[in-house]
This record gives sequence, structure tokens and C-alpha cells, in this order.
Amino acid sequence: MLNLLKNDKMFEIKRKDGLARLGEFTTPHGTVETPAIMPVINPNRELVPVKKLEKEFGTQVLITNSYILYKDQELKDKSLDRGIHDLLGFQGSIMTDSGTFQAHVYGDIDVEAEEILEFQRNIGSDVITILDEFTEPDDSRETAEEKVQKTIERAEHALRSKEDQISLTALPIQGSIYLDLRKRCGKSMGEIKGDLYPIGGVVPLMEDYRFHELAEVIIASKKGLGPRGPVHLFGAGHPMLYSLAVLLGCDLFDSSSYAKYAKRGDMMYPEGTKNIEDIDHLGCECPVCSSYDAEEIRESYKKNDIELLAEHNLWTCFREMNKIKQSIKEGSLWEMVERRVRSHPKLLETLKVLNQEYRFLERFEPRSRRRASLYTGQESIYRPTFKRIKRWILNDYIPPKKGPTVYFEPDQSKKPYSRFFREEIDMIEDYDANLLVSTQIGPVPFEMDEIYPIAQSVFPSHPANIFSLRHYKRKKKIDELIRWEGKSTLDILSKSKGPNFDEMKIKATADYQFGEGAGSALTDGTLKYVKNNKGRIKNVKLDQNHILSVRHYDGFFTLKKTGAEILLNHFSPPDLRIEVTEESAEFNRDGKSVFSKFVTHMSSDLRHGDEAIVVTENDELVATARVLLIKDEVKVFDRGLAAGVRVGFNLNENTST
Amino acid sequence: MLNLLKNDKMFEIKRKDGLARLGEFTTPHGTVETPAIMPVINPNRELVPVKKLEKEFGTQVLITNSYILYKDQELKDKSLDRGIHDLLGFQGSIMTDSGTFQAHVYGDIDVEAEEILEFQRNIGSDVITILDEFTEPDDSRETAEEKVQKTIERAEHALRSKEDQISLTALPIQGSIYLDLRKRCGKSMGEIKGDLYPIGGVVPLMEDYRFHELAEVIIASKKGLGPRGPVHLFGAGHPMLYSLAVLLGCDLFDSSSYAKYAKRGDMMYPEGTKNIEDIDHLGCECPVCSSYDAEEIRESYKKNDIELLAEHNLWTCFREMNKIKQSIKEGSLWEMVERRVRSHPKLLETLKVLNQEYRFLERFEPRSRRRASLYTGQESIYRPTFKRIKRWILNDYIPPKKGPTVYFEPDQSKKPYSRFFREEIDMIEDYDANLLVSTQIGPVPFEMDEIYPIAQSVFPSHPANIFSLRHYKRKKKIDELIRWEGKSTLDILSKSKGPNFDEMKIKATADYQFGEGAGSALTDGTLKYVKNNKGRIKNVKLDQNHILSVRHYDGFFTLKKTGAEILLNHFSPPDLRIEVTEESAEFNRDGKSVFSKFVTHMSSDLRHGDEAIVVTENDELVATARVLLIKDEVKVFDRGLAAGVRVGFNLNENTST
Repeated sequence: MLNLLKNDKMFEIKRKDGLARLGEFTTPHGTVETPAIMPVINPNRELVPVKKLEKEFGTQVLITNSYILYKDQELKDKSLDRGIHDLLGFQGSIMTDSGTFQAHVYGDIDVEAEEILEFQRNIGSDVITILDEFTEPDDSRETAEEKVQKTIERAEHALRSKEDQISLTALPIQGSIYLDLRKRCGKSMGEIKGDLYPIGGVVPLMEDYRFHELAEVIIASKKGLGPRGPVHLFGAGHPMLYSLAVLLGCDLFDSSSYAKYAKRGDMMYPEGTKNIEDIDHLGCECPVCSSYDAEEIRESYKKNDIELLAEHNLWTCFREMNKIKQSIKEGSLWEMVERRVRSHPKLLETLKVLNQEYRFLERFEPRSRRRASLYTGQESIYRPTFKRIKRWILNDYIPPKKGPTVYFEPDQSKKPYSRFFREEIDMIEDYDANLLVSTQIGPVPFEMDEIYPIAQSVFPSHPANIFSLRHYKRKKKIDELIRWEGKSTLDILSKSKGPNFDEMKIKATADYQFGEGAGSALTDGTLKYVKNNKGRIKNVKLDQNHILSVRHYDGFFTLKKTGAEILLNHFSPPDLRIEVTEESAEFNRDGKSVFSKFVTHMSSDLRHGDEAIVVTENDELVATARVLLIKDEVKVFDRGLAAGVRVGFNLNENTST
Repeated sequence: MLNLLKNDKMFEIKRKDGLARLGEFTTPHGTVETPAIMPVINPNRELVPVKKLEKEFGTQVLITNSYILYKDQELKDKSLDRGIHDLLGFQGSIMTDSGTFQAHVYGDIDVEAEEILEFQRNIGSDVITILDEFTEPDDSRETAEEKVQKTIERAEHALRSKEDQISLTALPIQGSIYLDLRKRCGKSMGEIKGDLYPIGGVVPLMEDYRFHELAEVIIASKKGLGPRGPVHLFGAGHPMLYSLAVLLGCDLFDSSSYAKYAKRGDMMYPEGTKNIEDIDHLGCECPVCSSYDAEEIRESYKKNDIELLAEHNLWTCFREMNKIKQSIKEGSLWEMVERRVRSHPKLLETLKVLNQEYRFLERFEPRSRRRASLYTGQESIYRPTFKRIKRWILNDYIPPKKGPTVYFEPDQSKKPYSRFFREEIDMIEDYDANLLVSTQIGPVPFEMDEIYPIAQSVFPSHPANIFSLRHYKRKKKIDELIRWEGKSTLDILSKSKGPNFDEMKIKATADYQFGEGAGSALTDGTLKYVKNNKGRIKNVKLDQNHILSVRHYDGFFTLKKTGAEILLNHFSPPDLRIEVTEESAEFNRDGKSVFSKFVTHMSSDLRHGDEAIVVTENDELVATARVLLIKDEVKVFDRGLAAGVRVGFNLNENTST
């Protein structure tokens, strides 16, 4: 049973938003919902009783320091004798740290790597941590490199005897601020296959508000490690950091900060820290703050009783983590992060790091979301959702006609604009003109105005556009735009036999969704559409065959059989494809989901939620499907669903469903 | 006793931040700390028991609708018989509304203005509201004008018999979205002297997310009304609006939203609203949310029990108001608002309104704060704190030397820069060159680098500057800057007999703090300074007289007697002056504070916290003082301190203290 847990199903992802994930991490003592906070328990001084943590805070996992236990003969004997769960009085999951942090603080510690590992195993810790080498931000590259090497060797050594062990093993990722070292270390740890991956050596960065370097370090570590998890951000105890760290793929946080801050009279808030000396109004309704006022908490602090402060701090941490979970569920974590980082200017800087890391972050960004995207300020232009469409329009979009570009400037409250401008569009579509519309994102080819995020975003009336008209004109080499001034504008245009507006819409959408050329391939023949009563295209037929349906919530297509065949024909493998074993194909043809472990190959361009085509290794059409795991994830996760099949196609069936 | 309360001391301001204020509003039933939420009690359906509101939420004031009571014969009889306090079971302050909102909702109501006013008095309401005319946002100007006129007439009528009444009277400010009407109505209501001023007719703006118009309406009303208070924003029940409204000078909020939202299953959060159907993780630790999980609240809602939701909503409102109070105390409300408005793009738009209204808002903005200003995003450039220094540098600052401008680009972490560059400055100060330093705010005359907010602000490493070097160069007509490249830069400069760096610093600071020319006047003679061990100027002597001390926290001056005399001599009245009666002068010479009612005249350029000079009506020096009320406030508040005297000067004393 434990072996099964250890090797098969320790970390399962339930929901994703960017690199963030709602997951379940299973240890010998139960399942931990992630992202989660692991309160740090000092066995010498229990600030908040463990029973309270369990019952009131709903804590599923604790962390304690094995080195402190080991160095105190009495505690050592007791924990060996009774086991760590009995000692702490906690039957949930317990992780132990190895003494690395003590080595960072005191310069050196007095224990061997194997010794402390063995001790952790012997006291029955659920997750044991190898004694890694703490890389300091000001370590020279050589020093950092040596420490990384030593840490990797220890990890290899520790895992050698893993099979016999019940405990799970945490393999920390070190590397100081050298991003290639972080990446290399992450990659090695992933290959060694730990059960949990702490990102270590980051406390000094947090203490000095070097948050942009922290973000770089997390991203580099994740790049190396891949989507494996859970990832633990060692020593990150301030709630103002949580949402950013979760967005970047951290799943676990240990917090001794709640106690450390309490000791100096500090109350944590998601927007920062305030000292109890300066507080008149608590502005919190946690169980502590709704039972005591600021004066009472201050008095108790003055009497050296810091339990109230410690509990408030923990409540703040737990509440913040709950808000984050809800945001992942809603798909609004990017917005939450963009708001939270404004609690400190140095934290705000991290948005520039996210901007620089667009290429990496974009892989985890769905092409559409169920929920409208809300602009939170000028820094929202860095958000992958907006940046992706900007890049496509500026770099990849090819205007369908040869003639001039006519520019529409609609009332921004009337989205989607093309339905309000239907009459004008009907007039102009027979002319040789490309249509451009001013949106709050920027100037957008008019035929794209109904797809995510153009129609599905909320902006102020006059935001700084994500990109400018000047930018568009330069990229598309347009010298002059013709502004739409009503019917008279037609006088300066010439008639054209080019595609009408609906066809332009289908082409542009298909090119954006499936890749360049998809639009031409899918419209090469006699096109017909069914529209709903609002005039919106519902279904597309080509030469009598139903090839595409339009998703009402984001304007993208779902593929019908013939549509899938056309695309298979047009794009070479692995584009658009999830390639599965013959064994899997049989099930998938019956409409059953695609399991990760049967995927033999997959396009790296597919994103979570994308429409994909399931094929055999001989590139035979098996099914249309909705992507659940991207290629990086499929490579790592043996268990779990890679895609949900929409329609499976049996070999001897000829009709599309 | 009551008369005294009514006429003398109903609204006292304890602390200010922008137009926001921590105040005390006293009614016949006690004192209400403002800003405050007045939960709306529906006498037909008490959602959250009044006892709970009092004991657990600490509610000091309730609001209920007199029209609902009046129209129900049983309730009417009961309330007349027992009085409203007994009927509701609440011994704190109770405000009653008049039925105006019902007229807005149902088109018309069936009661006369005098009748409902009389009824409110008879049931013993602490604050009665006249039956005003609800101006709709889409009212024509003529209609709005008529309604405003009628509302003003009713106010006049209602207050005619005021002297005999115990109840206080609320005079609503109407005017739809016509800002001049709002201003005019505010002015009239202030002149009629109500006891509380609701801003009415704004619910439709809030319902339609027309927040920028809401902000404009509040500002226009406040411009007319002046700093009188308390001001009540009628119908503003969503916590996401509170901080903005308080910053603009609203003191009271009635909330029936907690109940309305609960009825449709909505949970309020400061960052917006979520329906209980969509919530997995509450992300709240209020007494409701720490006792129930989302599933339990959902179940209770499905059984039509909305008390849990209503209570959560109220907790959210109260918590937010507490956070706001703490921010006022800290002087960080602008930052809180800049963060909060990002909960919705339409709310973010209001920052542009604040930018446009800089001239008005600046009057309430202290020239310095005890606390560093934190940048929250590119929209922070609108904040008066930053905008004021920008405008002064670009428009008013006169470079002290004739020669070229040398530009320093220091490591931004080394503030204040002039102490880190002391050696360089020592070298260059004998040359004919103005010194400019690149700061995170923008290019700043180097001699100003230690004053607020230049040294006392926190920015990201690379923010969008509040203003650019190009901007500075254009404004100062500088064709070319010389970048400081070390000692070699001196080779291209010529020697000068102009002021040294310390003298430049004194001049620029004095000009910025006291007005143009103050610097020259205060340095016209033999200058000497005392410096502290960090090399910072502590005291300034001119011709042996101690004229100025430097405030350590913001780099500004406090005035000594001779300094004050020099400035009195240099500036004509009313500049820098608080002019008081002879009677007051006598006290102030003894070091006692200046009371508002003895101020006969005052400079409109003085800001809260400014260094001012107290004079008699014959312009004789009485004292130096720190401004507590600005001119607008002194005009309105008979009670309260206008300024705290630093040092009073007796007529026959000749030494400065």
C-alpha cells in the first residue's frame, strides 16, 4: 500500500491556473491539499498548540526540524522511542528539515548527512529532507557550483536505498542566484525522482526584499524540474508572497514567520506587516481579532505572551492560501497576483520578471478562459493572456485582402463590436479593404473581435492599450489608414472578390487557434454557416460537411470529424496531435479519455484546454479531444488524464458525429 | 446639554489623511466614531439581530427607513408610542431616511415632506432626513435643477424650526451628474447648516459601475460643502468603494447591501463579489467563515436562510472600514486606495478623476508625511504627493547657477544620494554648474534630494519616472546635460563664486517649503550650519542668529524667531501667516495653541503640518506654529485647534528660543 502511494500517486493535480495547481499530495499519514502551509513546530516551544492547528486551522501537514530534535538528548530519545507523530501529538503528515538552515545561520552544524537522514527515517517522518548545502546569494559561482554538486550527490545517495523506505524524500534545489545552476539542479533532482522538491537558499533574498531575484530563481528551478511536484518554497512565510509563488508553481510553504514576527510584535497582513505598537484598528476579523482589540493584544504582548499575535499571523497565512485556492478555481490568479504585488514596490518589480519569462510562462497559459480577464493596471500588459494575442496580431496575422485598411473606432461599451457594426460590415465586405477595429487591447483585425480575450476582457474606458496603432501600422507596413466615416468611405475603395467577413472570421480564428494555414485549409471549398438569432456563427459546413462548431464562451472552434481530417492533412506531425498507443486508441475511439501514460508523442504547441486531434502512431485519426496536460506534463506524469475525448471515431464508421 | 451638542460639538476631527478624517459625530444618543458604517435595519425583517450588531460588530449607529414605519399602521403606532430606540431595541444613535429612495424606486410616494419630517422627530430619531428629490443620472439639466431647488427649499424649511428640536437634521446633496449643480447644492446645504450631509442620488451610478462619475459627484459636492461633516454617501454598501469614498471625504455609509447581496447568494469581498455557488474556498476568517465552510453556507442559503451570508457581508464591511481607519492613522490611505481600485477596471478609472482634480485635492495634502510613500504602480504618478514635487521642480524651481547642468546617476539603493556623493559634491561645488540627480521620481535638483518625498519614498528599481529627463530639459531650456563621469568632468567646467552645495540646499528647501524668494531672504548674510555626525545640516545660523532647524524625518525647516522675522519681512500678508485676534495672541505668546475661532485670516497656501507664523491683525509676530487646520477648515469649524504653537514670543522678550 505504501509503496503504491510512494511510487504511483503521491502528487495529483486537480486544477490548474498558469503554473499554479490545486493538487493532492499523499504521504504515509494522509493526503494534503495543495497549495498548503506547513506550520513550523519548534519542539522546544509550542507557540500555537498542535491540537488547535489541527482542529481550528485545519492543518494537514506540519514541519519540524530534525536537527533540533537530534541535538537534544532528551528529545532525541523521546522521538526515537515514541515516533515523531506521537511526540508532536499530530496524526497528519509531518515533514522534517535536516539542519541545513541551521548551517546557514550558525556557519556549521555537527552532524553527518547520512546520520541525520537515518534519524529522520527512524523517527517516522513522512517527508525527510536530505542535508543539502545552503547556497547563499553572495556565494561565488564556484562555491555555488560545488554546493550544488554536493547536494546532488547527497540526493543520489539518499535515494539509492529508497525502495525499502516508508518515508518520502525531499530533494532541495540549490544554486544561489545563478539561474543556470538552479535549472541544472532542478533537472537533476527531477531525474533522481524525489517526492517533494524544496527550493532552498532563498531566505536571504526574501529578507532583503530581492523579490525579482526570488522570482527568477523559482522560474529557473521550475524550468529544470519541469511540472513535477510538489514544490516547496523553503522559508517563505509571508502571505504577501504566496500568490506570486503559487502562480510560479510552488505548492508548499513552511512558515515559522508567524512565530518570528510575533516575537517582535509584528502582525502580518497580506498587504504587509504592522507592529502592534502602531495599530489602533486591527482591520481583521480572524478568531483572535474578533475576540480582542488592538489594545488587548498589545497588553498581552507586553506581558511576553505572543500566542495571540502568532495565531493572528497564522490565520492571515491560512486565509491568504484559501483566497489563492479560490482564485485558481476561478482562473483569476494572475489578477490576484497583479493586485498583491502592489503591497511593496520591490514585489511589484517581479511583474517585469514575469514579462521577461513570457516564453516559459506562456506554455502553461490556456488559450482561453471561462472568465473574462480584468485589467488591474498598466502592468497588465505583461499578462500572457494579453501578450499572446498582441504578439500574434503583430507578428503572425496576415491581412486577408490586398487593399487598404479601414479603421473603426467604436463605442467601447458595445462589445463585441462586429455585431453592433453589422450593417457597416455588410456594406464594406464586398470591397477590397481590410478591417481594423480599435479595442481596449489595441487595434485588432475586425474579424477577430469575438474571440478570447478580445471580447472577454474588462478594461477601463481609456487604458494604455496593450499595443498601439502606430505599432500595428509599422508591423503591417501600413502607411495610411482610412478611418471609417460612414458610407462615404466606400467611395474611395474598389470592389473585391475576396472573402466576405464571415469567411475572414473563420480564417483568422482558425489560424490563431490551430496555426498558420488552418484557415485556408478549412475554407477551401463551398462554405456555409448556421447562425444563431444574434447573428453569430454556430456551425460551419464545408462542401456539405459539418467541420466546425463555435464555442459560445470564447469564439473558438471545436472540431468535427471532417474538420479534424482536413487539419491532419494540412499539418504534419506532431502539430495539433496527441499520439497514443494502439492499445489506448481502441479506448479513445469509444469516447474514453486519453491517459497520460499511453501518450507516445504530443505537439508542444498544445495548451491546456486546446482542441486537439488524437492519432495513432501511424497518424490515423482516433478522436477529437480537449487538452488537459501539456507536453511537459505528459512527460512527467504517468498517471492522470492527458486529454478528454470529445468524439471518438471508429475505423469502420464513416459519418462524423 | 443637547443644544450644546447640536450647535457646538457634533462633529470633531481627530486625524486627517487627504480629505479623509477620523472623526467623532455626536448625536443625542452618543458618539459615533467616523468613518462608520450604518447598517440598514428593515423593521419588517431583521436579518442580523440588533443586539448582535451592537455587541459583536460594535455598531454605534443604525439607519432605518421612516417611510416604511409610517406606511405600516402597526409599526407607525408602535414607533410613535414607544419611540424608535425602544422599537429597534438599540440605545445607540439612530438615523432615519425619509422615503426619497422609495420615490426613486417606485416613482412616487404617498407622504408630504413636512409630515414625514414631523414623524421622524416624533419617534425620536437622532438624525432625521428631509424628503429630498432624488436626481437621476439621466435627468435633464432642467429637471435636476428643479429638484435641487426643491430640495434646498425643503432644507430651509426644515431647519427654520430647528432650534426647538432635539433631532439632528440630514440635508442631502442632489444634482445628478451636473457637477455645478452638485457644488451649488453642497454650498447651499452647508450654508443652511445641517448636521449631516448625505450625498444622494448616487445608487444608479454605483449599480452601473459608473465610478468615475461617482468620484466626480463626490468631489463636486465636497467642493460646495467645504470640510463640513459628517458626509454620508447614500446607499454605498460595497466595501470595494469605501476607501476611495473616505479618501474623498465621506464619513458615513449606510449599508443594506449586506442583506441585498445575501438574498441573491452573494458574498462580499473587498476585491469584489462572489456567488456562494462558485465558492469552494471562503478565503475569509470572519466569525461566520471560521465556523462554517463554503458547503455549509451554501446549504443554509439553499434552505432560504441568509443570515450567515448577511453576517459575512457585514463583517467584510466592518473589517474594511477598520483597515481604512488604520490607514488614516498611518497616513497611507492613498496607497490603500490605489490598491483597492484595482478590484475592477471601472473603479481604476477613478484615479484619472483624482488626477484631474489635483488642484482641489492638493489643498488637503500635507507637504510631508511621517511615513515613506510607497509606489503601487504606474498610476501612482497621479498621487498629489508626487505630483506636487514634480510640478514645483518643473515649473517653479530656478537653478541657482548660470553654468551647465551636471547629471548624476547614482545607485538607486543609496538614498539620500548626496551623502553617498559627498566627495564628488565637495569637488564640484566650487564650479559654475547646477547639479541634477536621477531619482526614482525623476531628475531632481541634487540639493533637494533629502526632502520629502524624494528621500522618503519606495519605488521599484526601474519605475516609470513620475517625470522624465526630457521633460526637465525642455522645461528648464537645457540643450545638453553633462553626465558626471568622475573628476575629469571638472575639466570642462569653470570655477564659480556662487553658493556652495549646503547653501543651495537651504535655498531650494526654503523656496519649496515657504515660497519663492524665501531661500534668498534666509541666506542673505553670513551663513553657518551645525551638522550632525552623518554630515546632515541640523541648524542654520544667519549672522550669528539661529534661524532654522532641520526636521530629521522630512528635511524641512522649523522656524526660529529670527527666521520667522525674516520671512515676515519678505512675504506680504497673508503669506505664511495665521492671523489671530489680540485676545488669542496673548495666549499664543505663552505657547498655547491657536483655536480656530480666533483666527481672523490665514494663508490659503498653508497645508496641514506646515510651519506657519502666527501674527496679530497688525502683523506683529506672535509665535511659530504647526498648521492643524487649513483655511477652508478654519472657516467652517468654530471649535478645534487651528495650529499648534511651537514657540510663542513675548513682546518684551528679545532672545529667540
